[in-house]
Amino acid sequence: MFEPVKVVLEDHEIPREWYNIQADFPHSVPPPLGKDGKPVGPGDLAPVFPMNLIEQEVSTQRWIPIPEEILAILTKWRPSPLIRAVGLEKALKTPAKIFYKNEGVSPAGSHKTNTAIAQAYYNREFGIKRLTSETGAGQWGSAIALGCKLMGLECKVYMVRISFEQKPFRKIMMQTWGAECVPSPNPSTQIGRKILAEQPDTPGSLGIAISEAIEDCVTSKDTRYCLGSVLNHVCLHQTIIGLEARKQFQKINLYPDIVIGCAGGGSNFAGISFPFLLDKINGREVRAIAAEPAACPRMTRAPYLYDSGDVAMMTPLLAMHTIGHTFIPPPIHAGGLRYHGMAPLVSHAMREGLIEARAMMQLDCYKAAVLWARTEGFIPAPETAHAIACAIEEANTAREEGKEKVILINWSGHGLMDLSGYQAYFDGKLVNYSLPEEELQRSLAALKGLPVPPAL
Amino acid sequence: MFEPVKVVLEDHEIPREWYNIQADFPHSVPPPLGKDGKPVGPGDLAPVFPMNLIEQEVSTQRWIPIPEEILAILTKWRPSPLIRAVGLEKALKTPAKIFYKNEGVSPAGSHKTNTAIAQAYYNREFGIKRLTSETGAGQWGSAIALGCKLMGLECKVYMVRISFEQKPFRKIMMQTWGAECVPSPNPSTQIGRKILAEQPDTPGSLGIAISEAIEDCVTSKDTRYCLGSVLNHVCLHQTIIGLEARKQFQKINLYPDIVIGCAGGGSNFAGISFPFLLDKINGREVRAIAAEPAACPRMTRAPYLYDSGDVAMMTPLLAMHTIGHTFIPPPIHAGGLRYHGMAPLVSHAMREGLIEARAMMQLDCYKAAVLWARTEGFIPAPETAHAIACAIEEANTAREEGKEKVILINWSGHGLMDLSGYQAYFDGKLVNYSLPEEELQRSLAALKGLPVPPAL
Repeated sequence: MFEPVKVVLEDHEIPREWYNIQADFPHSVPPPLGKDGKPVGPGDLAPVFPMNLIEQEVSTQRWIPIPEEILAILTKWRPSPLIRAVGLEKALKTPAKIFYKNEGVSPAGSHKTNTAIAQAYYNREFGIKRLTSETGAGQWGSAIALGCKLMGLECKVYMVRISFEQKPFRKIMMQTWGAECVPSPNPSTQIGRKILAEQPDTPGSLGIAISEAIEDCVTSKDTRYCLGSVLNHVCLHQTIIGLEARKQFQKINLYPDIVIGCAGGGSNFAGISFPFLLDKINGREVRAIAAEPAACPRMTRAPYLYDSGDVAMMTPLLAMHTIGHTFIPPPIHAGGLRYHGMAPLVSHAMREGLIEARAMMQLDCYKAAVLWARTEGFIPAPETAHAIACAIEEANTAREEGKEKVILINWSGHGLMDLSGYQAYFDGKLVNYSLPEEELQRSLAALKGLPVPPAL
Repeated sequence: MFEPVKVVLEDHEIPREWYNIQADFPHSVPPPLGKDGKPVGPGDLAPVFPMNLIEQEVSTQRWIPIPEEILAILTKWRPSPLIRAVGLEKALKTPAKIFYKNEGVSPAGSHKTNTAIAQAYYNREFGIKRLTSETGAGQWGSAIALGCKLMGLECKVYMVRISFEQKPFRKIMMQTWGAECVPSPNPSTQIGRKILAEQPDTPGSLGIAISEAIEDCVTSKDTRYCLGSVLNHVCLHQTIIGLEARKQFQKINLYPDIVIGCAGGGSNFAGISFPFLLDKINGREVRAIAAEPAACPRMTRAPYLYDSGDVAMMTPLLAMHTIGHTFIPPPIHAGGLRYHGMAPLVSHAMREGLIEARAMMQLDCYKAAVLWARTEGFIPAPETAHAIACAIEEANTAREEGKEKVILINWSGHGLMDLSGYQAYFDGKLVNYSLPEEELQRSLAALKGLPVPPAL
């Protein structure tokens, strides 16, 4: 008899509540602040987000029920399978057991749909008719396009111009799901017109796109803005990943020694790890490692400070590990990890000593991704490759130590829309990036004068 | 409580045997013939295929065990989920219950991996070190690249030049899985050199690519050729789809009234329908509809004749519904359905009155595909869209008749590698194709003088 490699759950076994780690942190998370240094209240966020999501953002309730309508949609592809990477284990000759949650099974190909469906639902429930958002490489943009269509909302996505031109397929996905996707900067916004007048050939940036999406939101009727990572409610919605994984491990009487996710804005890492951190807070031994790019070393090298989420400082100040909001990350192919900050909840978990972080080099990630594809079959997204490269390091350590560790990877998405990065890798055109210390310091200098979070 | 929409099977519930419909046809299938009109024996095929696959090709054994090693790989993504298309049902206001087998969950994104893994396995077991094959749009090429890598074989794929140039991503997939993918015609073969000398700018064709892959096979050491559809053993390997679906329907105490698959070479339709045809042969009522493009109306309009599988007539003569091997199908986006013939087993099932066929128009298929994406989420391949369009017709009929029919679709693959077709559709650049009668007759004239299959 061949050995089963996959643990599946039936629809009725899907988690009915999200896990809110804010209920369990030993110390409370510093609140978002306005530019005046005063805490931002729910009312301040109301022009941009619906109140039901703002309530989730500030909630300290441990378990938050998942509405039935969200579950009915998520069960088209969730619970996602937990698969044992037996092919990779064999190639590494490791005694470690490597498992992965395959979030690539969603229609948009990544974990982003978990929060996109939920955010569209809550906006619709609040009476909102239309959402605006921004996207870099396009994973979030396509997920929110799908979420809006399934919940009956209109959707407009501002896509960083260079990606819009270089990655036309993500735009077609959004169009297929009925969303309007435009290049950013765009003449339809005041900010866009201003930037285009000054720099007609600008490639655009995530910071500009955020500014345009927020401007569109606050100047349009029945419209709100939404974000695909960083915020507390986004991390909350992603905990369905880790909650499912816990159930799946229970079924096979195992428990992970190490939980690994890549970290861009932080939500996919939060999603897989927070439910296990609940066990850790309650005394269970488990390590959680956030794999970030060496090009954007927020948790491995940058300080924990108050900073804005966007270049134009339109968002409140968030307490987080940050390289500084003026930082423009180098052009690594893992576009989803090119962000200057880290989710406040993930940053706080780091402060609390609950998690570790590791910086990964681009070439190591692609090497790991190709090894993965050739042993496990599925081609990973370049973001996901960071988690894989980190897991391979841990599996090699397990071999050296002769220990039968259980490793869990959040396989956050497939790479079928990112094959040009693979081509560049095969053609020897990719290089490693590591943030120079002087650039980090220069970028952090822009934060001078901003409030500083209190010590723990 | 939300209603479950998905039926999953655990690894240990995967079927352990393929179903061979040759054991149950009321009349036997006419044998393949050589150009001399004499039946082709296993020995004649030995230079091209390994004997263990030739044995499957001619076998009349009803159940053929699936080797454990194949199951161990397939269970990384199989059994594939059976999902109820509640969103589509609602949009159509139909009392019909529409279910689909999501074959898009495989690493290559389609059902093709079911036979690719198996064919690579049997070749390796027979001592073969290297496989050659051809691919049009690239779905089969990528699947066999994966199959070869996971079984430790080398792989060379001749890809129709125009697709090679227009669809670079499929080529990168093959490269990621370690295969060599070259444009066809290619200077590395004698046939390729000859064609390139005569027509340096030729876009290539599937016929040319087959000829090159076979030439490479018979002139190389330890090498065999393989095909992604049409042949009996390919249909056999695909029956795992229908066998899983039968088990899944048992779990929810339902049985399909109508089973629908798109039909190019015929293997995905065979895969979903043959296990249900076994029930039909045993007296159960069930309809099976093959949805083919109106541009390639083999079963709806073309006769059942002996014809070659390729333009250069390198293959034996197969008894099948055919438009004639000189037929070059119009450039519909569903590249996987652009074939002049139909699998002998599917063609024979038609003759036996076990199945129906329906011709679908390109624009109806894209319209159906977009409706699907906007209600069910998953973006279908243009081939799959033919099955969807046919299912929508049946669901509309069920509404008109007020009948609660159960419809099963083989959702053969996702369309994430085919988004340029969607773009062309949105831009109004696609047209309908229906084969003109005079072209059908002209093409069939090329078959004059070939043997004719005996009447039933």
